[in-house]
Amino acid sequence: MTRALELAASPGVPLGPNPRVGCVLLAPDGTTVAEGFHRGAGSPHAEADALARAGDRARGATAVVTLEPCNHTGRTGPCAQALVAAGVARVVFAQSDSNPVATGGAGTLRAAGVDVEAGLLADAARAVNRVWTFAVEHGRPFVTWKLATTLDGRSAAADGTSRWVSSPPARRDTHRLRGLCDTILVGTGTVLVDDPQLTVRDEDDRPLPRDRQPLRAVMGVRDVPPTRRVLDDAAETVLLRTRDPHEALAALRARDRQHVFLEGGPTLAAAFLAAGLVDEVVCYVAPMLLGAGLSAVGDLGAATLTDALHLDVVEVTTLGAGADTNVRLTLTPLKETV
Amino acid sequence: MTRALELAASPGVPLGPNPRVGCVLLAPDGTTVAEGFHRGAGSPHAEADALARAGDRARGATAVVTLEPCNHTGRTGPCAQALVAAGVARVVFAQSDSNPVATGGAGTLRAAGVDVEAGLLADAARAVNRVWTFAVEHGRPFVTWKLATTLDGRSAAADGTSRWVSSPPARRDTHRLRGLCDTILVGTGTVLVDDPQLTVRDEDDRPLPRDRQPLRAVMGVRDVPPTRRVLDDAAETVLLRTRDPHEALAALRARDRQHVFLEGGPTLAAAFLAAGLVDEVVCYVAPMLLGAGLSAVGDLGAATLTDALHLDVVEVTTLGAGADTNVRLTLTPLKETV
Ligand SMILES: NC(=O)c1ccc[n+]([C@@H]2O[C@H](COP(=O)([O-])OP(=O)(O)OC[C@H]3O[C@@H](n4cnc5c(N)ncnc54)[C@H](OP(=O)(O)O)[C@@H]3O)[C@@H](O)[C@H]2O)c1
Ligand SMILES: NC(=O)c1ccc[n+]([C@@H]2O[C@H](COP(=O)([O-])OP(=O)(O)OC[C@H]3O[C@@H](n4cnc5c(N)ncnc54)[C@H](OP(=O)(O)O)[C@@H]3O)[C@@H](O)[C@H]2O)c1
Repeated sequence: MTRALELAASPGVPLGPNPRVGCVLLAPDGTTVAEGFHRGAGSPHAEADALARAGDRARGATAVVTLEPCNHTGRTGPCAQALVAAGVARVVFAQSDSNPVATGGAGTLRAAGVDVEAGLLADAARAVNRVWTFAVEHGRPFVTWKLATTLDGRSAAADGTSRWVSSPPARRDTHRLRGLCDTILVGTGTVLVDDPQLTVRDEDDRPLPRDRQPLRAVMGVRDVPPTRRVLDDAAETVLLRTRDPHEALAALRARDRQHVFLEGGPTLAAAFLAAGLVDEVVCYVAPMLLGAGLSAVGDLGAATLTDALHLDVVEVTTLGAGADTNVRLTLTPLKETV
Repeated sequence: MTRALELAASPGVPLGPNPRVGCVLLAPDGTTVAEGFHRGAGSPHAEADALARAGDRARGATAVVTLEPCNHTGRTGPCAQALVAAGVARVVFAQSDSNPVATGGAGTLRAAGVDVEAGLLADAARAVNRVWTFAVEHGRPFVTWKLATTLDGRSAAADGTSRWVSSPPARRDTHRLRGLCDTILVGTGTVLVDDPQLTVRDEDDRPLPRDRQPLRAVMGVRDVPPTRRVLDDAAETVLLRTRDPHEALAALRARDRQHVFLEGGPTLAAAFLAAGLVDEVVCYVAPMLLGAGLSAVGDLGAATLTDALHLDVVEVTTLGAGADTNVRLTLTPLKETV
C-alpha cells in the first residue's frame, strides 16, 4: 500500500476534479505484476492502468488500491467491474469512496466473490487527496481565505489603494497558492474597485496557459462591466449572481470545483466567516501601519472578546527580506470558541 | 578589551540609570594587575573598582576601559582624576562618553600627561549599553511600543474588553519585556477603561519587589482617581499631565529614564508614531478575528498606501502552543518611507 500511495502522488499530474489514485497488482507469491496510477481527468483510472499493463497476469492477483474502486461509468468504465472481469481474486483498498456517484465498488466486488479488505493506511490515503476528500464528504469545495493586511489589520488605505499592501515575495507566494486551487473567488466590490485579473502567473511573472488557470468566480448581484479584466480571455470566469455563500459553493460544486481561493474583499470574507464556510486562512502581514483605511474583515457581529472567532496557528513563515519582508500565517478556524 | 567587555556585561547587575562598564589594569609586561566593573547606581565605577583592587600596582599600568572615563563628581569622584592620581600611564577606551555631565575624561587624562587611545571595539561597547547610548545621544529615552492585536488589527472588542487579547504565554513574555525597561507608559484612556496595575510579575506570576519595578507613567490631562490600581503601592507612579510626547519624554529623561515601554492605548501610540518617537515595536498577534472593535493604532493621517509607516521586521517568534499560540513580531520603523 505504501508503494500504491507513492504512485498516487506521482508528480506531474495536473490538478483536476478527480482524486489521485495508485494501484499495485500482486501475484499470489507476493511479487509485483503491474503498477498503475491515474494521470488526470480523461485518462484511465489507476486500476485500469495497472490491469492494462498486467494483461493475463491479473488473473488470481491481489489489487492494492489507495481508493475504493469506483462503481460508475464516467469517462471510463467502472473499475469494480473491470477488476472482476480480469479475474482479480482479492482487493485491498485504503480510503472508502463516499462520492455519491462512485460509491459501492466494495459491494460490487464482494457480490462477485472477490475478497475485499478496506481501511489499510486510510489516513495516509485521505491526506493524498485532502481537498478532494473534504469536498466529497462535505458536499462543497474546501475554502481557503487569503488576506493581506498591515500590522494594524488594514487591507487598503482610506482611498481604497490596496495593490501594494503585500510585498513582491508575498505576491509570488499568492500566485503559487492560487495555482493549487481550482477556483478564485471575489466579490463585486473587489472587481469594481481594484479590477484585478485574478490569473496565476509563474515565478517569472508569466501567466500560465488558459487550460491551467483556475476558474474565476465573482459573487454579488451588481453587473460587472465587460471591460473588467476578470472577464478577459486569460481564464474562464463565472458570475455567481448571488450573495449567499452556500448557494455560491453549491454552484461551484456543480461545476466539479473542490478548492476555492477566497480573495476578498472584507465584505465577502465576513459573510463566509459568519457562515462557518472558511476552512483555512492564509494571512500575509505587511510590516506597515496605516492607522486608517479598510479593515481586513467586515463586521462579524462580535460585540465582546468572547465572541471572537478563534483560530489555530498552523504555520508561521517569513517571506522575502529587508523592506520586502512579509510574514505569512496559516491558520484554521477552531470549531468551538475557547 | 574583549575581557573588559565581558566584565561590563557581568550578570546580576540591576537595571539602573548608569551604563555598564568594565575595566582591566595591565602591567607594562601585559599581565593583568586587576579587573573591575560597575555594579549599579551607588557602587564604584569600573575604574575605581579596579584601582581599589590594584592598590600600588596601578602605577605605570595601562587601563583598558569599555567607556571613556567620566569627568564629573556624582555619587563617586571623577574616574579620570582617580586614574591620574593612581599613576596610570596609559588609558585605552572603547566608547566615547557623550553624556553631557560626564564627557571630557579623555581631555583631562591627556592634560595630565596620560597616553590615551579611543575607539577600540567601540561598536561592541555601544551594544552592551544599547539603550543608555541611545538615551545619551538622543537626549531622550528609547521607546518600545508594545501592542497586542487580533489578526484583523483589533486591540479590544467593541465593548472595550481587551484583557485577554493576548494568550498567557504572550502575557508572561510582556512581563519579561516590561522588566527590561525602566518606565511603563500609558494614556489616561487605558487607565480609565482597563484599570491595569502595570507592574512586573515573574514567571510564577509573583510581583517583583517595589524597588525593582519600573516607574509607571500616565500621560493625559484628565485626573486619575486615587482608587485606580496604577496608583497603588506596588511601584512608583508619575502622572505626566501633558499630551505632548516630546514633553513627556523630557520629563522622564529628567528622572534618569532610558527605556520607555509604551503600552498604549491606540490614541497615545498614534501620537508617538506621528511624532517619530517610536524606536521599536513589539506586536503580539492573537489568532482571532473580531471584525469590529478598537483599532490597534489611532489615526496616523495616512490617506493612501504610500503614506503608510513602513517598518523593518527584526524577529518573528511563535509563543505558546495550541489555542494559546501567539505570534510576536519585533520591528523597527524605517526612517524613510520606501
Ligand atoms: N488586501 C486584501 O487582501 C484585499 C483583497 C480583496 C479586496 N481588497 C480591498 O477590498 C475593497 C473592496 O471591499 P468590498 O468589501 O467591497 O469587496 P468584496 O467583498 O469583494 O465585495 C463586496 C460586494 O460583494 C457583494 N456581495 C457578495 N456576497 C455578499 C454577501 N454575502 N454580503 C454582502 N455583500 C455581498 C456585494 O455587492 P452586490 O451589491 O454586487 O451584491 C458587496 O458590495 C477594495 O478596496 C480592495 O482593494 C483587499
Ligand atoms: N491590546 C492592547 O495592546 C491595548 C493596550 C492598551 C490599551 N488598550 C485598549 O485601549 C483602549 C483605550 O484607548 P485610548 O486610545 O483611549 O487609550 P490611551 O491612548 O491610553 O489614552 C488616550 C487618552 O490619553 C490622553 N492623551 C495623552 N496624550 C495624548 C495625545 N498626544 N493625543 C491625544 N490624547 C492624548 C487623552 O486623554 P486626556 O483627555 O486625559 O488628555 C486621551 O483621551 C481600552 O479599551 C484598552 O483596553 C489595548
